[in-house]
Amino acid sequence: MEKIPVAVLGATGMIGQHFVQILAHHPWFEIAALAASERSAGKPYGEACEWVLSSDMPESVRNIPVQECRPNLPCRLVFSALPASIAGEVEEEFARAGYIVSSNARSHRMEPDVPLLVPEINPDHLDIIPEQQQRRGWKGFIVTNPNCSTAIMTMALKPLMDRFGLQKVMVVTMQALSGAGYRGVPSLRILDNVIPYISGEEEKMESETLKILGRLQRGPDGHRQFVAASLVVSAQCHRVATRDGHLEAISVQLGRKATREEVIGAFREFRGLPQEMGLPSAPVPPLVVRDEVDRPQPLLDRNAGRGMSVVIGRVRECPILDYKFVLLGHNAIRGAAGAAVLNAEMLVARGLIQA
Amino acid sequence: MEKIPVAVLGATGMIGQHFVQILAHHPWFEIAALAASERSAGKPYGEACEWVLSSDMPESVRNIPVQECRPNLPCRLVFSALPASIAGEVEEEFARAGYIVSSNARSHRMEPDVPLLVPEINPDHLDIIPEQQQRRGWKGFIVTNPNCSTAIMTMALKPLMDRFGLQKVMVVTMQALSGAGYRGVPSLRILDNVIPYISGEEEKMESETLKILGRLQRGPDGHRQFVAASLVVSAQCHRVATRDGHLEAISVQLGRKATREEVIGAFREFRGLPQEMGLPSAPVPPLVVRDEVDRPQPLLDRNAGRGMSVVIGRVRECPILDYKFVLLGHNAIRGAAGAAVLNAEMLVARGLIQA
Amino acid sequence: MEKIPVAVLGATGMIGQHFVQILAHHPWFEIAALAASERSAGKPYGEACEWVLSSDMPESVRNIPVQECRPNLPCRLVFSALPASIAGEVEEEFARAGYIVSSNARSHRMEPDVPLLVPEINPDHLDIIPEQQQRRGWKGFIVTNPNCSTAIMTMALKPLMDRFGLQKVMVVTMQALSGAGYRGVPSLRILDNVIPYISGEEEKMESETLKILGRLQRGPDGHRQFVAASLVVSAQCHRVATRDGHLEAISVQLGRKATREEVIGAFREFRGLPQEMGLPSAPVPPLVVRDEVDRPQPLLDRNAGRGMSVVIGRVRECPILDYKFVLLGHNAIRGAAGAAVLNAEMLVARGLIQA
Amino acid sequence: MEKIPVAVLGATGMIGQHFVQILAHHPWFEIAALAASERSAGKPYGEACEWVLSSDMPESVRNIPVQECRPNLPCRLVFSALPASIAGEVEEEFARAGYIVSSNARSHRMEPDVPLLVPEINPDHLDIIPEQQQRRGWKGFIVTNPNCSTAIMTMALKPLMDRFGLQKVMVVTMQALSGAGYRGVPSLRILDNVIPYISGEEEKMESETLKILGRLQRGPDGHRQFVAASLVVSAQCHRVATRDGHLEAISVQLGRKATREEVIGAFREFRGLPQEMGLPSAPVPPLVVRDEVDRPQPLLDRNAGRGMSVVIGRVRECPILDYKFVLLGHNAIRGAAGAAVLNAEMLVARGLIQA
Repeated sequence: MEKIPVAVLGATGMIGQHFVQILAHHPWFEIAALAASERSAGKPYGEACEWVLSSDMPESVRNIPVQECRPNLPCRLVFSALPASIAGEVEEEFARAGYIVSSNARSHRMEPDVPLLVPEINPDHLDIIPEQQQRRGWKGFIVTNPNCSTAIMTMALKPLMDRFGLQKVMVVTMQALSGAGYRGVPSLRILDNVIPYISGEEEKMESETLKILGRLQRGPDGHRQFVAASLVVSAQCHRVATRDGHLEAISVQLGRKATREEVIGAFREFRGLPQEMGLPSAPVPPLVVRDEVDRPQPLLDRNAGRGMSVVIGRVRECPILDYKFVLLGHNAIRGAAGAAVLNAEMLVARGLIQA
Repeated sequence: MEKIPVAVLGATGMIGQHFVQILAHHPWFEIAALAASERSAGKPYGEACEWVLSSDMPESVRNIPVQECRPNLPCRLVFSALPASIAGEVEEEFARAGYIVSSNARSHRMEPDVPLLVPEINPDHLDIIPEQQQRRGWKGFIVTNPNCSTAIMTMALKPLMDRFGLQKVMVVTMQALSGAGYRGVPSLRILDNVIPYISGEEEKMESETLKILGRLQRGPDGHRQFVAASLVVSAQCHRVATRDGHLEAISVQLGRKATREEVIGAFREFRGLPQEMGLPSAPVPPLVVRDEVDRPQPLLDRNAGRGMSVVIGRVRECPILDYKFVLLGHNAIRGAAGAAVLNAEMLVARGLIQA
Repeated sequence: MEKIPVAVLGATGMIGQHFVQILAHHPWFEIAALAASERSAGKPYGEACEWVLSSDMPESVRNIPVQECRPNLPCRLVFSALPASIAGEVEEEFARAGYIVSSNARSHRMEPDVPLLVPEINPDHLDIIPEQQQRRGWKGFIVTNPNCSTAIMTMALKPLMDRFGLQKVMVVTMQALSGAGYRGVPSLRILDNVIPYISGEEEKMESETLKILGRLQRGPDGHRQFVAASLVVSAQCHRVATRDGHLEAISVQLGRKATREEVIGAFREFRGLPQEMGLPSAPVPPLVVRDEVDRPQPLLDRNAGRGMSVVIGRVRECPILDYKFVLLGHNAIRGAAGAAVLNAEMLVARGLIQA
Repeated sequence: MEKIPVAVLGATGMIGQHFVQILAHHPWFEIAALAASERSAGKPYGEACEWVLSSDMPESVRNIPVQECRPNLPCRLVFSALPASIAGEVEEEFARAGYIVSSNARSHRMEPDVPLLVPEINPDHLDIIPEQQQRRGWKGFIVTNPNCSTAIMTMALKPLMDRFGLQKVMVVTMQALSGAGYRGVPSLRILDNVIPYISGEEEKMESETLKILGRLQRGPDGHRQFVAASLVVSAQCHRVATRDGHLEAISVQLGRKATREEVIGAFREFRGLPQEMGLPSAPVPPLVVRDEVDRPQPLLDRNAGRGMSVVIGRVRECPILDYKFVLLGHNAIRGAAGAAVLNAEMLVARGLIQA
């Protein structure tokens, strides 16, 4: 198969670098262009970019000249790692010009005609795309992935909802530094400390979850629309001194009684369309359940399934809701770059992108 | 006033050192003896003890010869920083011999004739002491303080229970390293990591809380007995890379509706008997409510009220229960040594110890 | 004694906050004005400043309105915590207008008519001031303190030079995060890491040391000039994950043979003019020698002498040069704000500032 | 080629785990037995061992029953990760019984008939083995690798000595936590701290280096003996809060003048016998020279060459000696388990072990 040329918008930032690392060795995609701010434009990527990942920059991208984020890139599919402050406008410009945008930015996530896609959970949400194109008069379109904390949590909620129903979710996060971007958290702010606040994060977890787990259905006017899942989420978000891997202490109230074994079984047996279709980035299994009393841990479990699996542990009864458990996922991979790449793979598999 | 001679059992450990530091400058107490394991006995304290606190060892204790933990110490009041493995037996031996034991160990906390005392909350629980002495045939007695996470949480729950009633408490902790003792957490285990498990901690929070907030009443046989508070606690406990200060994300369901202002007012206006009596270790106010969006933080708030205040922030509505908030307290002071010293001050104030 | 009104330039940054904290309780000085960038000007200090020190902002400064850094402040003495990028020009403007500037910025440190003052070492360097004023036509003047790593190292070198002569100094630093400013080191850059490079630091240590330890003498033309000390310094600088306190592994070649006891004696007996005159910020002793095999440590020793003492340990023979030892000092206090305040105290004591 | 069966002594400790991880996928060796203390004996490895490495335990070893460290293991080659307290005796027992022992313990390193082997540096030191066997009446023999800090430093010193001569080496280390073993450094000791002392480490660096870089020659009595290299080493060792990777700030005095380019060329062109022979664990190149101003860094460079390369940066003139530079190596791989495996590969290549 000929590889599909792709570009990365915001390629010099930390999430942009994760995109580059994943795409440099991707079986379906190949990097045709790297775009960033005006300041970087014109320089070779190896020079424009202060590489911060712990594995070295792939040799193949070092000499690619960085371009500006204008819709004149030699490809049809672009991944957006743009900061929210400019993503809204730039991504629309690309979609209008016919590009397919797989975005990690929050700008369009909650719009009524944009899929907030987790391919294991709601691949049918892609059916909104024709409406998006029609309503906006676009030849291209935008697909988004969730906020990192939400992305990993919903992976665990989906099988619970499907098997037992799901009514309430209390979640307390302990989020890694990389979730704030490379310069996001000064060392003096976090060494020997925990910050009990992340701007906008609790709101995102409480709202995005409902859209992701919701249904896409035809309204009375024949148009498709998202119907939020009927559950309540309460989130409390904290920044802790870990490099990667968001940890979440979760308690859930189910729709019907279930035994601990049934709950664990639901996690273990969960498979989504990406696993069935064998998409390249689809982890098998998507949910890893550990039996040890003190797992998952960010240090030990964040790279499970090459950062695409979500790891669950300590499933036990909750005296207030029904079950509590601990969950971990790699925020920069399953929660960002890897998520957007898996979304694009699903677009290819569904025929929405041609090579 | 002549100072009351006291001894510390387990004086060379980290909590023992906190006792020494507090007592070395205490207005009512003076250190008459320091006791530890056989291995240390006979040596001057300055030699027997690897001092680990960040302020230097008080000069006045350097040359005190360490004694064994036998009930032949020249005082009537002893503070116990013994490890649970031996605290049970040793503390009983002292109480039998006529000593008053203010213990930080968990061994006797849940026994039906031992006060689990937080002086701001349940000073009347001391009324069980005559029954303890009579039943066991002791001339002395044992008073305990709660587990560190429970000690600081109950300080915030008490005014809520009193004003609005309290039905459910969901708590997720992010606990400091010192809670595990000086050698408790290897650096390789926690650097760039979170451990989602602390042995026995969740059980302690779920059970001790009910005793602390419960009532002491006369049973049908005329004997006093503790009646657990009728509320449900669900705890999830984590170890994070902070030196001191346990952070807790809490969500509560109250007995009746209350506004956010009323909840904050309940915290701010809370005073207990120690504040009324002006006990030396009683912080004023006992609960500090911060308005900043990102407080309390372990690094910035753990020393509030010289480590005896509990700091609360981010009071807001919870979509599932009624209110959520973040709480911080110094685990080694308000949650351990400082708590036991305040307990002893209350014993003096109530006339249970004479100088 | 009436207090001398002072101002802080760059009062909202981290070093500015250290100035504020020290001056808020100073026996000789009182804060008459706080100045910062245009952006902060007009706001109350409590609002303009994101306070980052671990003790709370002094109440007394909360409502002081921040002013711009223009020479219209109601005092004669100003402390400069300005960034080097603007310090050069602004400080000159103040000196020209008649202000006495005690600066922590590097801009004027190496100029031939500006004292690079460490009051314990070279108080006579103040004699250059009349030349500075005359040559530049200023009514005020500028006095500077050294770079943080240099400030603490020279304190230990001075008694060695005086007693034994000093020829070579090899120094390897392990510097704290606060040396780079509050936002200077992103957490992802330093967690589980060491950075073996600090821009310009090695050059500063190698050159400033020679001026500080050098002599001020009259040249053939009758003018005073600094003569650099005739020794060689070789520095290698590293950033490590500590909050405060620069650690330095030092090896020295002396001018004559000395025993280990003589070297330790030189450190222990060292006193400077500030100690003799009892200046308020002068630590006694200025050099603390610890006997333990594993001290000094940043965590345990940085606050010695309220951050103004320098702590030395592990004095032992070096197989290549003569002696090696480990040295620690609080970079933000002895190495910055505290140094500038002590400098100002010396100016007062010498009659260069009147109340 | 049939694989050579091997055993690991001390297999459950952290270095033992590194051995297991390396050997589980080794092209020449296969694990025939895992041995540890009595306490572990009899249990499957997966149960006896608290696995602490960040990649999961290899599946293939989970069910291997742990044996005691007695010379009845089904192989001829054993790797020793035993603690020094017992390594001396146990390794001798194995050698006496005919086993070839590749040891990471310090017990026999400095003995006059035991090779202290770094295959890139002194493969000819293996010629002492017949004397070792003869003198001790052993059928087997012992080969050792250096202390971790010394192992990585000598890799850089060798090409300097060969090309320019080498007279003096000043080294200041910043060593990772794993160098002290999994439980070696309590988190409370090192978080926000540096420890300027590691027991015995400076002595090892100062003495082992001379043996490694020395010659093996025939004495007047016809026997071979080690002649120490004629250079002087002065070491200052520190523990810092990094997980893996020892960083060393080094300054050297050469035997003759050399330009910076020549020094860098000596590093870059360095190849040893392992590289020539293509041994499986031999990194190519053995020395990596980075041009960036702020490299090497533990976080980014410790896995260079799968942990077997040594990374050098910041080569520049030293005002006191000739050149200074920064050096990094993976202490647990190049400095321990990987070193012992490379040693064994060299034994195989030299015909000292047969399959």
